[in-house]
Amino acid sequence: MLINLDFESSEPIYTQLVQEIIAGIAKKEILPGERLPSVRSLAADIGINLHTVNKAYQQLKQDGFILIHRQRGVVVNPDGIPAADEVYMNQLKKTLHPLVAESICRAVDADTFMQVCKELYQSFERGGKDE
Amino acid sequence: MLINLDFESSEPIYTQLVQEIIAGIAKKEILPGERLPSVRSLAADIGINLHTVNKAYQQLKQDGFILIHRQRGVVVNPDGIPAADEVYMNQLKKTLHPLVAESICRAVDADTFMQVCKELYQSFERGGKDE
Repeated sequence: MLINLDFESSEPIYTQLVQEIIAGIAKKEILPGERLPSVRSLAADIGINLHTVNKAYQQLKQDGFILIHRQRGVVVNPDGIPAADEVYMNQLKKTLHPLVAESICRAVDADTFMQVCKELYQSFERGGKDE
Repeated sequence: MLINLDFESSEPIYTQLVQEIIAGIAKKEILPGERLPSVRSLAADIGINLHTVNKAYQQLKQDGFILIHRQRGVVVNPDGIPAADEVYMNQLKKTLHPLVAESICRAVDADTFMQVCKELYQSFERGGKDE
């Protein structure tokens, strides 16, 4: 799995790292039960602080994406990622709300907006190879 | 227009204020050419710092939502909000990317995701009255 971080972005590095790992799981580049590098080794590989990787892993653990074993190391949740519940769907709606608002102001209609979402879904199904 | 701010949220207050004003424009609660309160008066009304309101207004100005006149005060861009261009659509896609990734991991399919978007569009058309 290739991890792309944008050090110029206003998005914190740990958030970008969380998103990259989730994207890797969505593209099935990393599968449930598969091992991720240790905090130390990932930090060294991508040249970022140990604490940044640790913060990302802690968030991924909290959200059910990974397990952190003292002996077996870091693995993608072998039971699969917890399915969306009402809390997740409400959070998703809340996050989409400002995107829809700005898109309406900028004359992007619902069909165009949904088409963008559909193409993103399709690009993940193809393993993100056309990105 | 009612402005809802969540002081417990990790989202900065100025970002929330920007999003609330954009939502007000999307719901046509405030129309192009219409006046917004001055920085001072809005800050006093909602009990936040002058600089926070100023930062929000500066961002709204930069993004083409409002004009700030020395004499006429703050008005919603009377020429309308600039329509989406390629830069906007790319940014939208980039912002949707992690939401789609996490939704795929959590077994939300494309149709369900698009339905959430469609319902948000419909709620704006109804002026957000069912929120």
